[in-house]
Amino acid sequence: MESYSNLAKALEKYPSLIDLFIYKELVKGSPEHLYEASLHLIRAGGKRLRPIITLAVARMLGGQEAESKALPLAVATEVFHTFTLIHDDIMDQDEMRRGVKTVHKVWGEPVAILAGDLLFGLSYKSILLARQRGLSDKQIRMAVEALTEASIRVSQGQAYDMRFEEEEEVDYHDYLNMIYLKTGALIETSAKLGGIAANAPMPIIERLGEYGAFVGIAFQIRDDILGVYGDPKKTGKPVFNDLRRGKKTILVLYALKHSHGEDREILARILKGNVEDEELLRRAADIIKETGALDYAIKLAQTYSQNAISIIEDIESSGLVEDQTHANILKELARFSIEREK
Amino acid sequence: MESYSNLAKALEKYPSLIDLFIYKELVKGSPEHLYEASLHLIRAGGKRLRPIITLAVARMLGGQEAESKALPLAVATEVFHTFTLIHDDIMDQDEMRRGVKTVHKVWGEPVAILAGDLLFGLSYKSILLARQRGLSDKQIRMAVEALTEASIRVSQGQAYDMRFEEEEEVDYHDYLNMIYLKTGALIETSAKLGGIAANAPMPIIERLGEYGAFVGIAFQIRDDILGVYGDPKKTGKPVFNDLRRGKKTILVLYALKHSHGEDREILARILKGNVEDEELLRRAADIIKETGALDYAIKLAQTYSQNAISIIEDIESSGLVEDQTHANILKELARFSIEREK
Repeated sequence: MESYSNLAKALEKYPSLIDLFIYKELVKGSPEHLYEASLHLIRAGGKRLRPIITLAVARMLGGQEAESKALPLAVATEVFHTFTLIHDDIMDQDEMRRGVKTVHKVWGEPVAILAGDLLFGLSYKSILLARQRGLSDKQIRMAVEALTEASIRVSQGQAYDMRFEEEEEVDYHDYLNMIYLKTGALIETSAKLGGIAANAPMPIIERLGEYGAFVGIAFQIRDDILGVYGDPKKTGKPVFNDLRRGKKTILVLYALKHSHGEDREILARILKGNVEDEELLRRAADIIKETGALDYAIKLAQTYSQNAISIIEDIESSGLVEDQTHANILKELARFSIEREK
Repeated sequence: MESYSNLAKALEKYPSLIDLFIYKELVKGSPEHLYEASLHLIRAGGKRLRPIITLAVARMLGGQEAESKALPLAVATEVFHTFTLIHDDIMDQDEMRRGVKTVHKVWGEPVAILAGDLLFGLSYKSILLARQRGLSDKQIRMAVEALTEASIRVSQGQAYDMRFEEEEEVDYHDYLNMIYLKTGALIETSAKLGGIAANAPMPIIERLGEYGAFVGIAFQIRDDILGVYGDPKKTGKPVFNDLRRGKKTILVLYALKHSHGEDREILARILKGNVEDEELLRRAADIIKETGALDYAIKLAQTYSQNAISIIEDIESSGLVEDQTHANILKELARFSIEREK
């Protein structure tokens, strides 16, 4: 993390702030089992990427005061994100997440559905709590708008994702749009919320949203690359993990579109899932390189990451940056999103 | 409906307004199957009780202008209500609702979970659309607060309801609290939203909330009474329907608490569910009368209904009523909630 010295400090400082607010101010009530289920994945860990972006943006533009105002908005994004994880795990019938059993595996599906619903409502509650820290009605309304836009897009994205799993061939442009909806839109909102808390001008808030969307998409493309070419020692996942599971990723979808004959048949076989033949997996990984899919994905992620960095640089040039350290954090994060090994 | 002449007119006028807004302004987008699933229960019918209350309250206090401003808020309550129905049907594994198959029976559980989540987000979107009709940021913030309070309580209420189903004995006071959370809280919000749209003073908005909560609880108690003593020709449900299903209602819970020996054993047997012996069902219905449970429930519902009516009368006395017809609608609705036969 040497070249991410500012980011490393943010990753150290912010999570405890975020978690304290969640436990002390927001997610408490009865019946107990519902609140326990709601807190389960939050307690299990996670990078807190979304709220960190909100806090860093607010601090960059408005210093400590804006950061303090932004905390409930930051928490809203994390609580909302947790709701989507709980419901996604039910839909995908996943059994493990963040090293623990998923919520529906511990409490059953009905309580898990409800725990997600409760967190959805609590994410709005968190925004409303920002009023106590001095947010105006207009800022609250703007924050509610940003969260609501994300909520609709995340539902749309998950619907496309599930639909794509059932389809034989998916255009990789449609896949990219799905990634934006499912992952990019909420990170877009996270960045906007920081701007809203700092009372930034509307065009700046919009550009911050783009920063968030770009970082989110870059993160997801890097995820796809690590899913095939990642070092198992670093990712903690088996080699060729996503190929083995037949997961539709930007790599396979691009390669499928640009391959023919036997190569294409091999990829189609991979997409059917459950391939355990190491030879075949290795061959598929080679085809992905040969078709230019890996290069395409790497360049695409670089473009998104660079665009995100340029947005922060533009804001620096505009003279709106009050705290340079936190502008650096946001730039490092954009770089980290495509350089990370896990 | 003779003695409900004002209410009858509202039931004729409002639903088409509400539905038009839902179809034309709110619930549209892609992927198509997600939006189809989201609209399924809305298309299947329903009384539109919640949005009618919002609209009638707004009209009572602020005339046609307030009614128009209130429409998106009214729609928010109906869309939110539909989300809870979709998720509840999954949790309870119900197969039919409003005469059609439930959403998860048609599209599967993953899409049904997502359709509910989408409607949850769209209910906030609807509130935000009220800005185009002239609602201020403060009014939007108050409306978001009211909806958020309801959303948290409805989740809590459903969690208690499911927990109670597993418990042998439930105190009927706890049951009443559950009814408030699960049903009363959203109707409370519906009434408040009408007051918010009409820019009513805060204490009036609070009293309107009480009106809504009281009507909601009275409605639910009447539901419990009709579930045992309702005329099958009118309710469309088999005689002793709730006894047959072993449903925990205010009647059985009160009777259980106030019975002994053999009577108590019969009720305990009923609560285990699946009793088909007509003789036993009839005996249980008699015990409920003998313990005073039926009288208790009738009087309790009457009290709630009367309290709701008194609130509207108080508002009339305060001189804030601009449209008397719509005050009458709200009073008729409170009376209807305990007199209805289906």
